[in-house]
Amino acid sequence: MTDPAPASLPAPPYYAVVFTAVRTAGDNGYAETDERLMKLAADQPGFLGVDSARGADGLGITVSYWRDEASIAAWRDHAEHALARAHGREHWYASFSLHVAKVERAYRFTRPVDV
Amino acid sequence: MTDPAPASLPAPPYYAVVFTAVRTAGDNGYAETDERLMKLAADQPGFLGVDSARGADGLGITVSYWRDEASIAAWRDHAEHALARAHGREHWYASFSLHVAKVERAYRFTRPVDV
Repeated sequence: MTDPAPASLPAPPYYAVVFTAVRTAGDNGYAETDERLMKLAADQPGFLGVDSARGADGLGITVSYWRDEASIAAWRDHAEHALARAHGREHWYASFSLHVAKVERAYRFTRPVDV
Repeated sequence: MTDPAPASLPAPPYYAVVFTAVRTAGDNGYAETDERLMKLAADQPGFLGVDSARGADGLGITVSYWRDEASIAAWRDHAEHALARAHGREHWYASFSLHVAKVERAYRFTRPVDV
């Protein structure tokens, strides 16, 4: 297992999809589907990377990065993803927001190794 | 204390600033400064809302939403915020990425109350 780090990405412009969600109680098959969908997303044309965090209060944020709007639309229309979204509204999420945003600037910092 | 929920926001367009960071070990004054800065940010002109999550692996994502680029620039140049950022690079963060992105579309879901 490698240390966690923010996704490595190319130079902008590209797109970010920010998914912010509060889960319902219990797993209800979420973990298995989430793992499957994350792998599937990473195989899609135009997928650039993803960062995800869920706090102890139940609010989680997943930011996926995509080459362009066409690759976001193709992933939205992927049958297995569409089915998982419907299941999510029915079972997994108390509330969520989705933002599609065009990345105009990006900056990355890695701490120099202490010597 | 209210239940967590994604930030309530106006209709797009507006801007998202996605800050994804891995912390160093120990608090080193982080929690106190973070609380102070979150309050300060919320008082700035053009601030619309914020969502934040940090997972058990140490990776955290904070997404703040702003009216326009001018309000992001003004907050970037705020003296106390600039000082905290310098302190963060020196002490708090192993790595981070910052993305400034223009929100083009947004969607929000709240689960119907079970009756």
